[in-house]
Amino acid sequence: MAEMLLGLPVAKAMTQSSSERVEALKAKGILPMLAIVRLGQNPSDLSYENGALKRAEKTGIAVKQIVLPEGTSQEELMDVIRGINADDSIHGVLMFRPLPKHIDEKTVCEMLDPAKDMDGITSGSMAGVFMENGMGYPPCTASAVMEIFDHYGIELKGKKVTIFGRSLVIGKPVAMMVMGRHATITMCHSRTTAEDFAQAGREADIVIAALGRARMIDAEKLGQGQVIIDVGINVDEEGNLCGDVDFHQAKPLAKAITPVPKGVGSVTTAVLMKHVVEAAEKSIQVQM
Amino acid sequence: MAEMLLGLPVAKAMTQSSSERVEALKAKGILPMLAIVRLGQNPSDLSYENGALKRAEKTGIAVKQIVLPEGTSQEELMDVIRGINADDSIHGVLMFRPLPKHIDEKTVCEMLDPAKDMDGITSGSMAGVFMENGMGYPPCTASAVMEIFDHYGIELKGKKVTIFGRSLVIGKPVAMMVMGRHATITMCHSRTTAEDFAQAGREADIVIAALGRARMIDAEKLGQGQVIIDVGINVDEEGNLCGDVDFHQAKPLAKAITPVPKGVGSVTTAVLMKHVVEAAEKSIQVQM
Repeated sequence: MAEMLLGLPVAKAMTQSSSERVEALKAKGILPMLAIVRLGQNPSDLSYENGALKRAEKTGIAVKQIVLPEGTSQEELMDVIRGINADDSIHGVLMFRPLPKHIDEKTVCEMLDPAKDMDGITSGSMAGVFMENGMGYPPCTASAVMEIFDHYGIELKGKKVTIFGRSLVIGKPVAMMVMGRHATITMCHSRTTAEDFAQAGREADIVIAALGRARMIDAEKLGQGQVIIDVGINVDEEGNLCGDVDFHQAKPLAKAITPVPKGVGSVTTAVLMKHVVEAAEKSIQVQM
Repeated sequence: MAEMLLGLPVAKAMTQSSSERVEALKAKGILPMLAIVRLGQNPSDLSYENGALKRAEKTGIAVKQIVLPEGTSQEELMDVIRGINADDSIHGVLMFRPLPKHIDEKTVCEMLDPAKDMDGITSGSMAGVFMENGMGYPPCTASAVMEIFDHYGIELKGKKVTIFGRSLVIGKPVAMMVMGRHATITMCHSRTTAEDFAQAGREADIVIAALGRARMIDAEKLGQGQVIIDVGINVDEEGNLCGDVDFHQAKPLAKAITPVPKGVGSVTTAVLMKHVVEAAEKSIQVQM
């Protein structure tokens, strides 16, 4: 029977650790502060924001919510970002994307100081992930996968890891991060042949599914005794949340598996807070 | 019998194409100019520089050689980079590395404008490779591999490509570039198990060897009918140049193979010139 790699215990342990670091920061007169920038009232943004606010409360981190009308102009938004960059009391930023279509998202993201980019939206953070040089921060979801490995003591060195998906928010950064831990990586995507796709899944020690396609990774694409990390969050035809992995087919095969929901997604706000703590700690080092 | 993927015909065709673009630029009053920054008299730097000067001559590109004493201070070198960034007549820069140990190489590289970074030494160029957004330029050797694929009509889409090596100058960027062409990638490195290493080599459609270890990829790690790109340039125990692939073992197996020397290494200066031409063309677009 597969071990359930639940997200909640990971998030709890991370929050405990982060809140201790927050106390140490407060003792030095630093209140870690996250700015959340949101345009409009997208329900999924609001839901995530709500989760982040609760997690910030538990961690002892202050949050500055900057809510702008959906019709905010690019120049106005860029002024907001400039203000955040210049405001030493704000250590990190979460800005919801996609931004409305009248805004050039790339230009706005690039304006943000990578040191305050908590979710890998700047090219500085992306270079940091690719070069493994500590610049900026990886996307929270990619970091959440690593936290799950660490929490459950899953060794990566010398392991074969197959990553399904090549997006900049998860596939590519998580591939670089697991290879940084000395895993051998294979990356499959929409243009991989069906045969290679299934073989790469079957032969892996660890599978990371991040395609955004409901239950695409079924028993044919999996082997025995694997660790399966399912990053997908999809809604199936019956309106139920499900992952990229067919959980019922995978569970009897796997050694360990993350469920959806209650898996990777439960860890992301704890990662966000950890990034804020790191940014606040680095801000002291810069001052000294 | 394996097809020889010689570098020289690739370099010649590229130079022909680049020189036509140079003529078009000159007709618009733009003389493409490369600055070469070298500290000291390292023989391998001098050898490469000599090749670059000849290639520039053939392409019609002007070169500004900036030769500094090995003892040049970091501040002096940074002043040189600042000057290059500000000089609109210089379109691209090649700076030899490693820099002497008293210089913080990362800080110096970061000072260079990615738009003038012809060889992937800035984090801007690295982010450009990772994000595939056209920022900066990939390392010339990584681009040289892509030029060989293109010149010899080697399709990448849906192919299994195994990359041996995970360096920032070749393994990682070339992996992102071949995946950008829709190949399925596997990356092996020093921490890959011997079994996985050999299997990944045998099962690939295309092998890219970039480990810097003489003849490490032998018949045991190769399959039948593969395309083999050998990026390694090593000196063996008898003082002969050789690649990362055991050429004599690989040749009877391969469908096509790059020799060492006369393979990938022969293409890099032509790539450097192509990057300078692109930078010069972009400089017009910026002005307009």
